[in-house]
Amino acid sequence: MPAVIETDVKKMQKCIDLCNRCMQVCEECLTSCLKEPDAQARMKCIQTLRDCADICSLAAQFMARGSAFAKQICGLCAEICEACATECDMFQDNHCKQCADICRQCAQECRNMVNM
Amino acid sequence: MPAVIETDVKKMQKCIDLCNRCMQVCEECLTSCLKEPDAQARMKCIQTLRDCADICSLAAQFMARGSAFAKQICGLCAEICEACATECDMFQDNHCKQCADICRQCAQECRNMVNM
Amino acid sequence: MPAVIETDVKKMQKCIDLCNRCMQVCEECLTSCLKEPDAQARMKCIQTLRDCADICSLAAQFMARGSAFAKQICGLCAEICEACATECDMFQDNHCKQCADICRQCAQECRNMVNM
Amino acid sequence: MPAVIETDVKKMQKCIDLCNRCMQVCEECLTSCLKEPDAQARMKCIQTLRDCADICSLAAQFMARGSAFAKQICGLCAEICEACATECDMFQDNHCKQCADICRQCAQECRNMVNM
Repeated sequence: MPAVIETDVKKMQKCIDLCNRCMQVCEECLTSCLKEPDAQARMKCIQTLRDCADICSLAAQFMARGSAFAKQICGLCAEICEACATECDMFQDNHCKQCADICRQCAQECRNMVNM
Repeated sequence: MPAVIETDVKKMQKCIDLCNRCMQVCEECLTSCLKEPDAQARMKCIQTLRDCADICSLAAQFMARGSAFAKQICGLCAEICEACATECDMFQDNHCKQCADICRQCAQECRNMVNM
Repeated sequence: MPAVIETDVKKMQKCIDLCNRCMQVCEECLTSCLKEPDAQARMKCIQTLRDCADICSLAAQFMARGSAFAKQICGLCAEICEACATECDMFQDNHCKQCADICRQCAQECRNMVNM
Repeated sequence: MPAVIETDVKKMQKCIDLCNRCMQVCEECLTSCLKEPDAQARMKCIQTLRDCADICSLAAQFMARGSAFAKQICGLCAEICEACATECDMFQDNHCKQCADICRQCAQECRNMVNM
């Protein structure tokens, strides 16, 4: 059924785009967190941002290549994105608020990939 | 001068977006090349696509984090993108033609970053 | 109990070392497969080698940084290593035989990490 | 001349091993820096450690696959390793001292690769 296939391609493209966006926002947020006066209190947040940027980047690559493991890496990516959103939600600055929002959107798209 | 700064931010965003796009197109083209009946004749093309996808991915991450080495990695990325375009130009299928085109655009934006 | 902690550190170091080794052997095997006269018949093997090299590389990085998600990425790494060993076992050349062997060792160490 | 070839293979293996080692030590040092009471003063050090771990990881992958761009990425890797050593030298703790030492060794081996 071509209609279904087209839908799947669009779903995957949406997920790739969000993984790329989430990678960028996590990298930006990490750099911003390092500059905050309470950088030391953000240790766990910074560590989670690092993991999240890296797994989003590799998930986008796996999807782009049509990997047989795209769903599995998206499952792990969703889990790390959720953890990252939880960490970022603990801080009041704009970069953390925006990052938490994008992480949640990315987690949702990754779960959609898993269930495709 | 805020106007200049805004221009630089936009230039870098354009470069990040093209690196992400080039990563995706190279991964897709690599997978398509492996499925072609003349896969063995595409050895050098496939190897260059692999390098190009990986360096584009890391260049996007370096730019996103505001790395002090963003220009240097963009310089290397431009070089690999040009080589990849040259390899892809040797084949007549649509995925190679499209990939060569995106690689050249990405190389140009990476050079713009280097000269920023 | 320091003895237990030391054991865990040693286990993780063994797993990092095997992930690095497996990354290298998969990259070498992929390049060798591209040069074989039956490269086209190795499509699935080459694609799995690509995924395996990348996940081994990121798993080593997650373990090195003491990531909260080290066990999860090792779980996925074990799964991809096993799939890669199965693919490589289908070919008779030395690089595939050696790669299958290292992939199985790496899968085992990754499972040890998961159960730590 | 097989003797020369063997020497080159050994040189590259030494460089791959040091890149893997440097990736690990940088990741460990970054995590340790985040836990230090003066984490905020280490911002530039942490950012350089992040870049260094990532470029070492990709340089090892490029060498392992016999990339045509192995020398170029090793050239950039040497530059980032030197910068990382300089940053780490500013701090007195053992993890920074050890990291600076490994970064310098890795930079030297990467330069050897460039001149091979």
